[in-house]
Amino acid sequence: MVQYVSPPLDLSFMALSDATRRGIIDQLGRGDASISGLAARFQMTLTGMKKHIQILERAGLVVTQKVGRVRICRLGERGLGAEAEWIEAHRKLFEARFDALDEIITEVRQEECDESAG
Amino acid sequence: MVQYVSPPLDLSFMALSDATRRGIIDQLGRGDASISGLAARFQMTLTGMKKHIQILERAGLVVTQKVGRVRICRLGERGLGAEAEWIEAHRKLFEARFDALDEIITEVRQEECDESAG
Repeated sequence: MVQYVSPPLDLSFMALSDATRRGIIDQLGRGDASISGLAARFQMTLTGMKKHIQILERAGLVVTQKVGRVRICRLGERGLGAEAEWIEAHRKLFEARFDALDEIITEVRQEECDESAG
Repeated sequence: MVQYVSPPLDLSFMALSDATRRGIIDQLGRGDASISGLAARFQMTLTGMKKHIQILERAGLVVTQKVGRVRICRLGERGLGAEAEWIEAHRKLFEARFDALDEIITEVRQEECDESAG
């Protein structure tokens, strides 16, 4: 079985930090597209689109293939599993920190109530 | 009720595209820390750590507060909800594309079998 080694999260999160690149992923989720087709859709020069595609390729999020004179882009095999895993694990850390904060606030308020009652 | 408006995904994904900054989030998930404490832990200059903290602050992932002469960092209130939502929605797009690809491959193979049998 082929193992797809994910490039580091550095590359993928960097690739996702641009609205156009996130839009390209959206678009390729609906179907493969040529670089020139994507450039037209995003109202961008071919050179500009090529740079975005290179960044997505380096992150493994997009793969390209030359078909005749056209370069076709499609979503990469690696998916977003590693990113989802990181985000989910750390989302819980954020939530846990605020649950802890809520508890402290509740305790402080309770102490204040006890003091004013006592 | 206070509404926390998330800064754009551009800023947060950019903030997450660096292993040290992801490490800082890890660390703050275990407890608040001073900038100098974080600098020592990550074996980095104070100036270097301040830059990382600024990027995390701009993304709303970390908030800082001056307590006496020390600046304390903690996880920001916004959490990672918007990022999790984006990743999950697009993870499904990747999976759907490969399910579609699997179907095409199965169809092609079936046709080949039919041809060789016929």
